[in-house]
Amino acid sequence: MKELEEKIRQFGTVLPGNVLKVDAFLNHQVDPVLMQHIGQEFAARFKDAKITKVWTVESSGIAPAVMTGLALGVPVIFARKHKSLTLNSGMYTADVYSYTKKTTNRISISKRYVDKTDRVLLIDDFLANGQAVEGMLQIADQAGVEVVGAGIVIEKCFQPGSAELAAKGVRVESLAKVSSLADGQVSFKQTEGED
Amino acid sequence: MKELEEKIRQFGTVLPGNVLKVDAFLNHQVDPVLMQHIGQEFAARFKDAKITKVWTVESSGIAPAVMTGLALGVPVIFARKHKSLTLNSGMYTADVYSYTKKTTNRISISKRYVDKTDRVLLIDDFLANGQAVEGMLQIADQAGVEVVGAGIVIEKCFQPGSAELAAKGVRVESLAKVSSLADGQVSFKQTEGED
Repeated sequence: MKELEEKIRQFGTVLPGNVLKVDAFLNHQVDPVLMQHIGQEFAARFKDAKITKVWTVESSGIAPAVMTGLALGVPVIFARKHKSLTLNSGMYTADVYSYTKKTTNRISISKRYVDKTDRVLLIDDFLANGQAVEGMLQIADQAGVEVVGAGIVIEKCFQPGSAELAAKGVRVESLAKVSSLADGQVSFKQTEGED
Repeated sequence: MKELEEKIRQFGTVLPGNVLKVDAFLNHQVDPVLMQHIGQEFAARFKDAKITKVWTVESSGIAPAVMTGLALGVPVIFARKHKSLTLNSGMYTADVYSYTKKTTNRISISKRYVDKTDRVLLIDDFLANGQAVEGMLQIADQAGVEVVGAGIVIEKCFQPGSAELAAKGVRVESLAKVSSLADGQVSFKQTEGED
């Protein structure tokens, strides 16, 4: 998605440890028009997938997920993140390790809003080690719902998440594929016939 | 806003301690079409306020805030919430006490995305004791920016937040005004000439 790549080039900053900071338009300050276009793009890519729900994890996934839900005409659920590994019988839960923050969070989705017949699209802002998507997949397994794929705003191709999801047969659609952050420069993977 | 009141009547649940649970459409599961209408309504009410930025606090404020930013054509900033009272020189910060969770969080907004000439609309999902809005007002004071008002999805009129903001001269626009949750029933304050 050229518009997103342009934003990353213009406003993204590369920090030590292969961190791409995009808090100018996605993670802290949010560009609502870009979010709308992102939502429309995910909806277009998954238009034949008969999606009934969009799932994401708070907080940075919420804006793109809600715009995707709007474009698809389906509800969105944002999984809650808890520092403490609390138990709750009314929730599906999974533990998600954050490599950036070096902490484990428990994410949860209320059973009340999950239907056995759901066909779920997972949305997240980043795919790096794939922990957040992996956590949502675990919840989908517990709930017995079908995951039609994962829509990722920014994929870091040089980290293992993408390959691991592919190995599980999960369809991944990433709107920007970052192939390298070496020397503080953002390089994108070439994609065929894009835009 | 009748559509919102209907949603609350149909899907809201009242819990002990004057808690109104709206995780069916706002706080956990999110209704994107309702969020869009909420954003359009805030934009209409503040259309002459020359707003340059929308601020909110993660996580539940993000969906209505992003839709408001989209309708107004301005960027959105969601303040980050931290459990630990960390210091960070690049951030404006304020401490926010949660009566529901009985914890203090530090909220922060990066100085990088604040302009002295900003005219800010504060958005939040609930107004009860007013702590989150109060925290954003403190940050606005530190930053020296003008707050044009607060757009609240659900105001609990029987709690002190609303009166405290009014006493400070903050314009508050609430889309649903809950006057009572007594006996597990949601009652709304009558508003003149609405819808």
